[in-house]
Amino acid sequence: MTRINEHYQKLQAGYLFPEIGRRVAAFAKANPDAAIIRLGIGDVTLPLAPSIGRALHAAVDEMTTEEGFHGYGPENGYDFLVDAIREHDYASRGVEIGASEIFVSDGSKQDSGNIQEIFGLDCKIAVTDPTYPVYVDTNVMAGRTGGADEQGRYGGILYLPATEANGFTPDPPDERVDLVYLCSPNNPTGAVASVENLTRWVRWAREKRAVILFDGAYDAFIQDPSLPRSIYEIEGAAECAIEMRSFSKRAGFTGVRCAYTVIPQALMGSTSSGEEVALNRLWARRHSTKFNSVPYIVQRAAAAVFSPEGRAETAAQVAYYMENARHVREGLGAAGFRVFGGEHAPYIWMHTPEGVSSWDFFDRLLAETHVVGTPGSGFGPAGEGYFRISAFNSHENVGEAIDRIHKAFGG
Amino acid sequence: MTRINEHYQKLQAGYLFPEIGRRVAAFAKANPDAAIIRLGIGDVTLPLAPSIGRALHAAVDEMTTEEGFHGYGPENGYDFLVDAIREHDYASRGVEIGASEIFVSDGSKQDSGNIQEIFGLDCKIAVTDPTYPVYVDTNVMAGRTGGADEQGRYGGILYLPATEANGFTPDPPDERVDLVYLCSPNNPTGAVASVENLTRWVRWAREKRAVILFDGAYDAFIQDPSLPRSIYEIEGAAECAIEMRSFSKRAGFTGVRCAYTVIPQALMGSTSSGEEVALNRLWARRHSTKFNSVPYIVQRAAAAVFSPEGRAETAAQVAYYMENARHVREGLGAAGFRVFGGEHAPYIWMHTPEGVSSWDFFDRLLAETHVVGTPGSGFGPAGEGYFRISAFNSHENVGEAIDRIHKAFGG
Repeated sequence: MTRINEHYQKLQAGYLFPEIGRRVAAFAKANPDAAIIRLGIGDVTLPLAPSIGRALHAAVDEMTTEEGFHGYGPENGYDFLVDAIREHDYASRGVEIGASEIFVSDGSKQDSGNIQEIFGLDCKIAVTDPTYPVYVDTNVMAGRTGGADEQGRYGGILYLPATEANGFTPDPPDERVDLVYLCSPNNPTGAVASVENLTRWVRWAREKRAVILFDGAYDAFIQDPSLPRSIYEIEGAAECAIEMRSFSKRAGFTGVRCAYTVIPQALMGSTSSGEEVALNRLWARRHSTKFNSVPYIVQRAAAAVFSPEGRAETAAQVAYYMENARHVREGLGAAGFRVFGGEHAPYIWMHTPEGVSSWDFFDRLLAETHVVGTPGSGFGPAGEGYFRISAFNSHENVGEAIDRIHKAFGG
Repeated sequence: MTRINEHYQKLQAGYLFPEIGRRVAAFAKANPDAAIIRLGIGDVTLPLAPSIGRALHAAVDEMTTEEGFHGYGPENGYDFLVDAIREHDYASRGVEIGASEIFVSDGSKQDSGNIQEIFGLDCKIAVTDPTYPVYVDTNVMAGRTGGADEQGRYGGILYLPATEANGFTPDPPDERVDLVYLCSPNNPTGAVASVENLTRWVRWAREKRAVILFDGAYDAFIQDPSLPRSIYEIEGAAECAIEMRSFSKRAGFTGVRCAYTVIPQALMGSTSSGEEVALNRLWARRHSTKFNSVPYIVQRAAAAVFSPEGRAETAAQVAYYMENARHVREGLGAAGFRVFGGEHAPYIWMHTPEGVSSWDFFDRLLAETHVVGTPGSGFGPAGEGYFRISAFNSHENVGEAIDRIHKAFGG
């Protein structure tokens, strides 16, 4: 009988969000009258901005005419989008990125899951703990790890605890590591890396010749313009870092699907015989072999995010969610919880009541307040005892959720 | 320095179509006045059908309203699309497929490239030769092969020659094989598998406990209703076959991006200790970890393909291309070439003039007639001496291309 990829057997339970979906569906079925408020999965709720809708309609019209029809697109994205990214996400911050260094894709989840494929199976991986589960699971599936221990830590991965003590932004490790996943603003903790912290990482990576996989999917939520939005704002990062950015949260594209990955031409890996190979070339080969470009209409929609109207409208959406974040922070704080994040990120990271596990708190919150959040332990062992609340919902629902939590726990 | 995935170093040249793109771009630059006709990459040319345009506009309107907005979709696709697929692509042919057995994706290229990830690295792979390069290249990248020999055959892969003698539809091999990629109607040869041929494959796979990866991306071009459109029309296939189908060619979705993969619940693989594992479960885990659903508007467009108007309009598009295929077949035949395929497929597979290699013919055809085709050797060693002409273009361009070829080679 045909052998399966046995590394899948090492994976713990299902992927986090389907598991949450199952528990919520079961609760909803048993409690059909409960008005459930979802602050779990981190999915946007505001409709697409008008300028993006117009761009989509215009692109659909093109696609239904002979002159305007677009079939297979350029593998790395259309120039109109690649150039808009270069100008607005990089040149505007003093960073020069070449057109061949940008790969437009259908999501940062995909990119952050697929990027490990161009690296050797013997690479030593480091993740912050807690972390976005995709970084870990895709390395487990590829066979870079051993099995999981009782706490869910996979053998062979170096976990860097993100704790209250280090402000949830760990510094580089002393151990030898080849690849490290960093996410700022952070999912799930809502922490944001400072210039100083990222400078230490870049210096470390260049010295150790390691590669940083930098996930900036939430950069639009940074409120302080002096904080880095791209790792390439740090000198030398082009020689040690891959960056992933997304339209999902900044422009409500979770159901539209567009993102991009940057791999500078200067970034090298090596073969076992010491030959240096540009990682850009490897990813280009992967991208053209296992991917087939983002829909034309979606790329037009993404380009519209950079138009003057698009920037104003999406900034207003971000501000809307950040007002929710403020409300959640303050509300949970007033209810007696220790809270973190939510200042430059759409996530609030809260400590569960003393002695209550993350999943127990999930179940209790759902049962008592009909509010859905995300158990911190789902993001890694160091997330145990924490809980993530997302700011993606309406003002009304967030207000109602905080009121209910205050009533249930605030006393 | 961080180690790369060295298996990439085994890959021969670039992926086929980017290489063609480079040669055509160089020729166009050197010959700016040449009216190039592209019958190479197999990209559709007709605009999206009106009913699909209407579905897209309606979905965009939804996405710009609070009530109609859709964020992250169900990982395997929306019910409205999954159910339409089940009814129109399967129940209508007497095949019952469950909702949990269908995985909506952004392309058959992706699915056929990614599917190998759920299998063991020690699986023995078989492909027909010539074959769609993605099947081979993704296995090379994963490490299931040795290096390539002088003819481009990778060590460890079993190549099943598709020849004029076997009607380009090879029978199952005697050797032990775990996974075999079959494509019918075939890319690149345009051959189509009969019920008898597929029955032999299914019987073989069940007996040997192998898995067939069946690529049916071109099923809409089958003209004879007695030919199988799905491998599940063959009894027992649900226990040995995975099927991939696409909207790209049947409905002009190459720039819209939608496809699906079917993995029956009855299909099992095994661990090294003999434990049986449902492949459906493994793919569900991969799909939910490394993918994030197809855009809502695209799924609405795909569902519109199954509406009465959508079916009539896309059938007319297929008929338009098949009229081209007839013209190419007859025109090349009249010009003295040996031609195959093109009766139930949008591809014509022609023999190059005696002693002229596939790539030499590519260059000569481009230089002398300004027509772009695809070198048969790009699809595998047994494709050497053949050449693929695609039927995807306007009647006018196809007529002009055949006239030019006739003038250049017909004398």
